Amino acid sequence: MNRITETVIEADPRLPVIRMTRDFAATPEQLFRAHTDPALFTRWVGPDATATRIEHWDARTGGSWRYVSMHDGTEYGFHGCFHEVRPDRIVQTFTFDGDPDGVTLETLWFEDLGDGRTRLRTQSLVDSFEGRDAWLRSGMEIGVNEGYAKLERMLTDGAV
Amino acid sequence: MNRITETVIEADPRLPVIRMTRDFAATPEQLFRAHTDPALFTRWVGPDATATRIEHWDARTGGSWRYVSMHDGTEYGFHGCFHEVRPDRIVQTFTFDGDPDGVTLETLWFEDLGDGRTRLRTQSLVDSFEGRDAWLRSGMEIGVNEGYAKLERMLTDGAV
Repeated sequence: MNRITETVIEADPRLPVIRMTRDFAATPEQLFRAHTDPALFTRWVGPDATATRIEHWDARTGGSWRYVSMHDGTEYGFHGCFHEVRPDRIVQTFTFDGDPDGVTLETLWFEDLGDGRTRLRTQSLVDSFEGRDAWLRSGMEIGVNEGYAKLERMLTDGAV
Repeated sequence: MNRITETVIEADPRLPVIRMTRDFAATPEQLFRAHTDPALFTRWVGPDATATRIEHWDARTGGSWRYVSMHDGTEYGFHGCFHEVRPDRIVQTFTFDGDPDGVTLETLWFEDLGDGRTRLRTQSLVDSFEGRDAWLRSGMEIGVNEGYAKLERMLTDGAV
């Protein structure tokens, strides 16, 4: 199996869905921790030039979350609830304060590749193709790629 | 505007979505209460032959819920989280224990028609057309129609 070291970002042609795939030199437990431990999460999420402050974090099934990212002196808030948090899968909702009626249903899978690597797969589901395509055009891949590169460095450094 | 007294259930041809519309002789506040007050909710949700027991209920933005419906001696569990609870709109996730990996993103709108009537609109979004169509074939309209008929009687009786 080839290693997916750059994030593969795909738009589903039939569904208002964005899918991402990336492999990490990590166990599923490490990737789970990086997504659920707020002190770890804020160290890697988002573009390099962003600092993230957690305002609420309860990463359990039925819990919820809210964080604010600061970029060039502007604050961007995000919030949602955790539908399910389990070792191999997280399902959560996601809303950006700047689009308060927009809601994304996010699913993350941590798939053990059996050789010390884990495949992270994510799926973001919205209720319109227009909304999905606006996300794709927003430059989201910069934050995604810079964020995962930070996570990779944290894994290399033993921080997770 | 015509009154929609029977529930209109529609499958979107382009999106894995089910939409429902029904008008009630009620204010938006009453419909909101009927969906958020657990003692009221359990009196109308589901088919006539079903009794519903709340196991967890925190109808606030970031809260969560779980209930069990008893039908012919069998228990059916459902759970989810409340992404947003506000007077004109509720967004929540929904999973049936019998299909534990299936997740629906539900949105409910309470739309004041201005003459003592309120239009309830709902949207159920899933991540596949197969899943959506299986819901439509499941006989869900029986529970929907019997449930809303009970809610209508509660509104007539002044119970809400």
